[in-house]
Amino acid sequence: MSLVVVGSVAFDSVKTPFGEVDDALGGSATYFSTAASYFTNVSIVAVVGNDFPEKHLTFLKSRKIDIDGIDKQEGKTFRWKGEYGYELNEARTLDTQLNVFQSFQPKLPAKYRDAKVVFLANIDPDLQRDVLKQVKNPVLVACDTMNFWIEGKRDSLLETLKLVDILLINDGEARELSGEPNLVKAANIILSYGPKTLIVKRGEYGALMFKDDRIFAAPAYPLEAVFDPTGAGDCFAGGFMGYLANTMNFEESNIRKAIIFGSVMASFNVESFSLDRIKSLDYSEIESRFGEFRSLTHFEDIR
Amino acid sequence: MSLVVVGSVAFDSVKTPFGEVDDALGGSATYFSTAASYFTNVSIVAVVGNDFPEKHLTFLKSRKIDIDGIDKQEGKTFRWKGEYGYELNEARTLDTQLNVFQSFQPKLPAKYRDAKVVFLANIDPDLQRDVLKQVKNPVLVACDTMNFWIEGKRDSLLETLKLVDILLINDGEARELSGEPNLVKAANIILSYGPKTLIVKRGEYGALMFKDDRIFAAPAYPLEAVFDPTGAGDCFAGGFMGYLANTMNFEESNIRKAIIFGSVMASFNVESFSLDRIKSLDYSEIESRFGEFRSLTHFEDIR
Repeated sequence: MSLVVVGSVAFDSVKTPFGEVDDALGGSATYFSTAASYFTNVSIVAVVGNDFPEKHLTFLKSRKIDIDGIDKQEGKTFRWKGEYGYELNEARTLDTQLNVFQSFQPKLPAKYRDAKVVFLANIDPDLQRDVLKQVKNPVLVACDTMNFWIEGKRDSLLETLKLVDILLINDGEARELSGEPNLVKAANIILSYGPKTLIVKRGEYGALMFKDDRIFAAPAYPLEAVFDPTGAGDCFAGGFMGYLANTMNFEESNIRKAIIFGSVMASFNVESFSLDRIKSLDYSEIESRFGEFRSLTHFEDIR
Repeated sequence: MSLVVVGSVAFDSVKTPFGEVDDALGGSATYFSTAASYFTNVSIVAVVGNDFPEKHLTFLKSRKIDIDGIDKQEGKTFRWKGEYGYELNEARTLDTQLNVFQSFQPKLPAKYRDAKVVFLANIDPDLQRDVLKQVKNPVLVACDTMNFWIEGKRDSLLETLKLVDILLINDGEARELSGEPNLVKAANIILSYGPKTLIVKRGEYGALMFKDDRIFAAPAYPLEAVFDPTGAGDCFAGGFMGYLANTMNFEESNIRKAIIFGSVMASFNVESFSLDRIKSLDYSEIESRFGEFRSLTHFEDIR
């Protein structure tokens, strides 16, 4: 089944206590689609500048990702520069150059408009709705957002949330969006905005799913070597949505499995810079780590 | 089977955004033994002042806790005063009056010396070893500690750790004790000090167990109303050790179940001030919340 993602394609310069990398391939749509490509066919909607090298497009195509929705514009590609301390939980942004991303107007190629599953990565909520208008009859829509839109375009974001089945955000964003410090209360407020399912990403502490009055808690995979957390949330979303698009089963039990697949992809991603670890996984490695999540969380019944 | 705990009995004055309480019954041995009393017979070793009211001892006895090891000394009982902000994760200590606890010399009544399971709550590591010398032939010894001893009595603490089967500490303490920010690496270093099992408590993020090269991740129960986190770690230890002492099965699968029982007791405790919630639970409530932990963590196999 086809999965369309709209988001950013970027060059990232990242410094962590374990090394650094300059102008590496990054961006939410890149991480998302690479992670999702292990599960389903993905189509990207994004914009790049004319400085974007062919080799990156060749890589995406090698993952069977449809790149016809990547618009090449006159100008430079979005660039982000950040660094992490030893705790590796939050990046300090050193520089952001939106470049061609500033005037991004997502246009879906005709063949994308029949997509059944859509992921709206973290972009202007006005654009998120523009994209949805271009899809004829989606059956599952999920989105991400960030503090910038929660603070600056709250009304537009709330309009988008009315159209969305699943919202994926981090714990700080959930608290800010709801105005409520307690995460369970925050989740109930956010579910009243429209989404049927809320997934709260907590970095090294895993993810929580809130759906009706039920909660699912998935741990993060405890790693001995976390190298670079950039893109972990997008890889989580990619594994999660890729698995759902592949199975087209949106029952809670399958959403829980999808969360584990998302956690698996995030755990691989943080093991190295950029897409180095997730660009060429074997599916057997993914299955094996899924099994490790089971060992990690399993306990016996009360008797 | 009998379980002996040595630790503090105290008066706590606690302020949280949701209320405050003055001179309420607290202390590590109090929380621990109350939580453990739902699973097994517990015997306390502690010291109180002559200001300690009979009603508190009557309460402990009503939980079938053996209080013959509580030494009443001339002077005042240990007092602690602290407050929590909205995040409720770490207390700010406003005042500590050690009083009779300052010169605590744990003496085990003769009948305690056959105990098979011993918990050394957070006290001077010299005293932890003194207690162990008084127990004839324990089969399971666990302990807690804190930054004060890690910084001030490191050599003595390392001596204690050689004698301990299970160490229960929080994530900050694990990082400080090992000198290693990555928790997986930190755990491996700490296991090399002697304990066969390390349990890292992470407050609202649950707990991690490290044993040989395996890890178990238990979430905390997501609560809509966290009232007062004081004593949560001790209630965790109490539920955990109480279940192990009751079953006398120290295999990993049973340790995992014990961690869930510990998490259950901690989740009840934070629902109100002092021991208000855990002083009169039905065992059916404990079993029911164990089941909720299963719902919270369950996901299906890969196929």
